[in-house]
Amino acid sequence: MTPLGGVGEIGKNMWVLEIGDEMLIIDSGVKFPENDLLGIDLVIPDFDYVLKNKEKVNGIVLTHGHLDHIGGLPYLLKELKVPVYGTKLTLGLLEGNLKEHNLLKDTRLKVVHSGKAVKVGNFTVDFIRVNHSIADTCALAIHTPLGPIVYASDFKFDQTPIDGEVADFHKLAELGDSEQGVLALFSDSTNVEREGYTLSEKVVGETVDEIFRDARERIIIATFASNIHRIQQIVDAAFKYNRKIAFTGRSMINNVDIARRLGYLQIPDDMIVDIRDCSSLPDSQIVLLTTGSQGEPYAALTRMARGDHYHINIKEGDTVMISASAIPGNEKFVGQTINKLYRRGANVIYEDVSGVHVSGHASQEELKLMLNLVKPKYFVPTHGEYRHLYKHAALAEKTGISRDNIYIAEVGDKIKFTDEKIAKEGNIQSGDILIDGLGIGDVGNIVLRDRKLLSEDGIIIVVVTIDKKGNILVGPDIITRGFVYIRESEELIEAATKRVKDSLKECEESNITEWSVLKNTIRNSLNNYIYQKIKRNPMILPVIMEV
Amino acid sequence: MTPLGGVGEIGKNMWVLEIGDEMLIIDSGVKFPENDLLGIDLVIPDFDYVLKNKEKVNGIVLTHGHLDHIGGLPYLLKELKVPVYGTKLTLGLLEGNLKEHNLLKDTRLKVVHSGKAVKVGNFTVDFIRVNHSIADTCALAIHTPLGPIVYASDFKFDQTPIDGEVADFHKLAELGDSEQGVLALFSDSTNVEREGYTLSEKVVGETVDEIFRDARERIIIATFASNIHRIQQIVDAAFKYNRKIAFTGRSMINNVDIARRLGYLQIPDDMIVDIRDCSSLPDSQIVLLTTGSQGEPYAALTRMARGDHYHINIKEGDTVMISASAIPGNEKFVGQTINKLYRRGANVIYEDVSGVHVSGHASQEELKLMLNLVKPKYFVPTHGEYRHLYKHAALAEKTGISRDNIYIAEVGDKIKFTDEKIAKEGNIQSGDILIDGLGIGDVGNIVLRDRKLLSEDGIIIVVVTIDKKGNILVGPDIITRGFVYIRESEELIEAATKRVKDSLKECEESNITEWSVLKNTIRNSLNNYIYQKIKRNPMILPVIMEV
Repeated sequence: MTPLGGVGEIGKNMWVLEIGDEMLIIDSGVKFPENDLLGIDLVIPDFDYVLKNKEKVNGIVLTHGHLDHIGGLPYLLKELKVPVYGTKLTLGLLEGNLKEHNLLKDTRLKVVHSGKAVKVGNFTVDFIRVNHSIADTCALAIHTPLGPIVYASDFKFDQTPIDGEVADFHKLAELGDSEQGVLALFSDSTNVEREGYTLSEKVVGETVDEIFRDARERIIIATFASNIHRIQQIVDAAFKYNRKIAFTGRSMINNVDIARRLGYLQIPDDMIVDIRDCSSLPDSQIVLLTTGSQGEPYAALTRMARGDHYHINIKEGDTVMISASAIPGNEKFVGQTINKLYRRGANVIYEDVSGVHVSGHASQEELKLMLNLVKPKYFVPTHGEYRHLYKHAALAEKTGISRDNIYIAEVGDKIKFTDEKIAKEGNIQSGDILIDGLGIGDVGNIVLRDRKLLSEDGIIIVVVTIDKKGNILVGPDIITRGFVYIRESEELIEAATKRVKDSLKECEESNITEWSVLKNTIRNSLNNYIYQKIKRNPMILPVIMEV
Repeated sequence: MTPLGGVGEIGKNMWVLEIGDEMLIIDSGVKFPENDLLGIDLVIPDFDYVLKNKEKVNGIVLTHGHLDHIGGLPYLLKELKVPVYGTKLTLGLLEGNLKEHNLLKDTRLKVVHSGKAVKVGNFTVDFIRVNHSIADTCALAIHTPLGPIVYASDFKFDQTPIDGEVADFHKLAELGDSEQGVLALFSDSTNVEREGYTLSEKVVGETVDEIFRDARERIIIATFASNIHRIQQIVDAAFKYNRKIAFTGRSMINNVDIARRLGYLQIPDDMIVDIRDCSSLPDSQIVLLTTGSQGEPYAALTRMARGDHYHINIKEGDTVMISASAIPGNEKFVGQTINKLYRRGANVIYEDVSGVHVSGHASQEELKLMLNLVKPKYFVPTHGEYRHLYKHAALAEKTGISRDNIYIAEVGDKIKFTDEKIAKEGNIQSGDILIDGLGIGDVGNIVLRDRKLLSEDGIIIVVVTIDKKGNILVGPDIITRGFVYIRESEELIEAATKRVKDSLKECEESNITEWSVLKNTIRNSLNNYIYQKIKRNPMILPVIMEV
C-alpha cells in the first residue's frame, strides 16, 4: 500500500494497493496550493508510478465526491483507461468534472451502492456507509489474502444524520470480529486534536431554524456547495418559513442540479426562483444560497461583500450566515468578507456563534470507536499533516495497538504488510505536480523562485546595443516593473543608469567584450548601488544586443 | 479626536487629539503587511495631517511598548521634534528602536510613572495602570474642558498579575464617579468576540511548571519577546528545577537585555549561559528561550525546525513549547513549524493544550467592567477590525450607552465631541504608507499590481533592434523569467518568437514604424498566443532599440 498523497499534507489523497501483479487505486485528489506556490492553480499527485504500471491497474475506487479525493482523476484518466467505482453522488459529481475535460465519453463509471461489494479485477471491495460533510460517503474494505484492509478517509459518526442513514456499524463490527480479523485500518486524522465527538449535522439545522424564525428581511447563506445535507436543511427551513430559494455561484448551481437530479436533494420546483427575479419578491420571502464561505476572491458572497455582484446588493436588514469554518490559510479572507458585510449594514452570523457549522471529520472519541470496532492488526493514520498523523498514532496506541504495528507514512513510502510486521519497503517516485493554466508540470522550483523574487522587489531590465567590436551604440537604458514609482524615483534611476554606463565604459576601455563579463558588470554595479541606496534586491536582467 | 490608524484594522494605532490650537498625539504604531502587499516590510500611518500642523503638536503620549503602538515613531520623529511620554519600559523599548534609526540623541524621552499625571502643553494626562501582555502598560486619561477622555488600548484586567500590580480600578472608578463624569471612553475591541474573562498570566506559569516537572531533557520555549512577565515565569521555573537559560533570536536577546537593565526582569547572572555553550551542559539542565512563535521564516525556532539554526539541532527527547497563539494569517506558518519539530522527534506543546498561552486583551466581561467603571458619556470602540468595533458598540449599548452616543470610526474621521453630541466633522488625509527597504511611500498601487502580475505568471521580454527606417536588424529575441521551464517549453517559445516575427514583418511591409504601434503589435500577438496555448497571462514587455 503506497500513498501518492494525503499523508503529511492536507489534500491530494491517493493510495495504490498492490497484490502480486495487480493494482487498485483508491481516490485521486487535488490539493489547493499554499501561498508560496505563486500563480499555481492546483497541485496533483505525481502519477509516474501508476502510469509506468498501467497494465497492472484494475480500477479506481472512490470514497466520496470531494475534490481532494476525486479532483485529480481528469489528469489521471487522460492517460489511464480503467473503470471507476463509487456511489451514485460521487460519480455524479465526477461526471461534471470529467465533462469539463472532455473525458466523460471515454470513462467507464460504475455505480456501487453502499452496503454492497464489488469485484475489481481480483480485488473484492466492500462499500461501507459512513457519515461526512458530503452525502453518500463510504469507507472501503478491500479483501486481501492476509485479511481485509479498511480504508476510512474521510468520515465521522453522526448518530442523527439528515438522511437517516447512520454509519454501517454492523459491517465494521463484523469485519473486526471475523476469524481472520482486519489486517489494517487507514483512518482520517483531520480532527484528532479535538476531544469528544463531532456534533451532528442536525445541530446546524436547529441554528438555521432559529435564524429563519428571527429574520424579518432577506436571508443569505454561504456554505460548501457539496454539503448537500446542509443545503437540504436550509431548504426545509425555507419551506417551513415560506421563503423561496435562489442560488448563486457556479459550483452551488452545478451541485444542486446534480444532487436534485440524482435524488439527494428534495426541492419543489416552485420553491426555486432565478436570482434575477429575487427583487420581484418581498425581502421576507427570499433566501439566497451562495458560494464564498471561504472568502475566495471571485466567489459570489465575496462579490456581494465587495459590492460587485451582478444581481445582489447587500443592504441593511439582510441576515448573512456563513455556515462553514475557515480552512487554515483562509482566515484572513473570511474575516475581510465579514468586515465588509458588516460595513454594508448586514447582520452577520458566523463561526463565533456555535451551531453555525459542524465538521465532517471524526473527533477523538469517534476515532477510538472506529479503532475498537475494526480491531485492526496494523494501523496507518491518514488524511492529515504530520502532527495529526503523529497524534492519531498516539491515540491508537492508547486503544491497545502496539507502536510496532503502527506506521506513520510519508508520500511515496511502499508499505508492506506481512503476517509478522508492517514495514517500509523502499520508495517510489512521488510528489507534487503543479498545474498552472493548461500547463502541467512546466512550473517548478526555479520558476517559482523567480516569481517570488519578482513579487518582492520587481525587475530592472538593462538594455544595451553594441557593435561587433564591443562599442556601445545605444543605451544602457533602464526599464523597471514592480520596483518603484518612477516619477518619485527619477533621481535614483538616473544615478543608477549613470553607474551602469560608467562601469561599461571601463569595460570598453579595457577592451573587455565578452558578454558574460559585461552582463556581470551590469548586474553587480546595479545590485550594489540599489541595495546601498534603498536596501532592496530587485531582479536585474541585462540584455545585450549586437548589431 | 482623529484616528490615523487602528480602527477598521489591526495595527498602526495612532490618534490625534485637538483642543483649540493644540494637538496631542497618542501612540504611533506600525502594521505588518497583509499578503497582498507584495514585498512590503511595514505599513505606517500617513502623517501628513500631523506634519502640516507641526507647530501645534505639544507632544506624544504612549500607552505601552508594542510595535503596533510605538513602531511608527522613528518615521514620525524624523520630521517632528516633540517630547515623548511613556512608562520606563515603554521608553526603554522605544530607545532601542530609535537607536537603529539614529534618532536617539535628538529625541526627548520623558519617563512617567503609572499612577502619576503629566502636563503636556496644556493637556494634563493621567497614566493609569492596566494589565496587558507587556509590562508597564497604561490607560490614559486626558483632561479636557468637557471632562476627561479615557483611552484604554490595549488592556486586560488580570486579578493575579505576575508583578502584583493589578489595574488601577480606583482611579478608573474615581474618574467615572467624578461630578463632571468621563466625556468619552476609547477601548480595546480585540477580544470582543470572547465571552467571559481572559485568563490570568499566572495560568501559563502553572502550565510551564508542569512542563518543567515532566521534561527529562532539553526544554525549548518560543514566546513573544516583549512578554516580560511570561519570560519571568519561565525563569522562575528554570530556577526551581535547576536549569540554566540560554536566549536566541535578536529581539529576544534585546528585550531581555532592556528589561533586565530597567529592573523588569530578575535573572541571576549565573543562570544565563551563552547559546554556544549549551552543549557543555547536560540536556536536563538547559532551557532555551527563543523567538519564532509565529513561524516567521527567519526566526530562531523556525530555523531549528528546518534544521538550519547555527547552534541548536532539534533531537528526540526535546520538549518544545510554543507559548503563543497564531496571529490571524500566521496559522499556516505555525502549523508548518510544529510539523517539522514533530518530524525531528520533539515533543511539541502548543495551542491545542490549554494554559500554554493567554491573551493580553480583555474579553467581554472585562470590557463591560471598564464601561461600567468609567461610565463614559460617549463611547468609541478602538483597536479592531470593523466587526470587532461593531460588536463592541453593541456590547456598550447593553451596558446602557445609547446608540447615538457611540461612534464607530474610520481612519481619518474627525470626531467632534460637544456637550450635546458626538459627530463626525469631516475627514483628514490619512491612510497607509508602505515601507519597502529604506523606501517610504515609493511603492503604491501600480507597483504592487505589477508585482502581483509578475508573481502569478512571470514576465516575457521581447527585444528587437531596428534601424532608423524601421527595418529589423536584430531580434525579436524572447527572454522570460518566472514563466515556464524553458527546457520543457522550447517549442512554445520558438512558436511564440515566430508569431512576433511574423507580426513585425507585417508592420514592416505596411511601413508602420511608430514605436507605440510596434509595441502593441508585439504585446497583442504574444498575449493571444500564450493565452490560447496555456491559459496564462504573463506580463509582456516589448523593448525596441533603434540604432
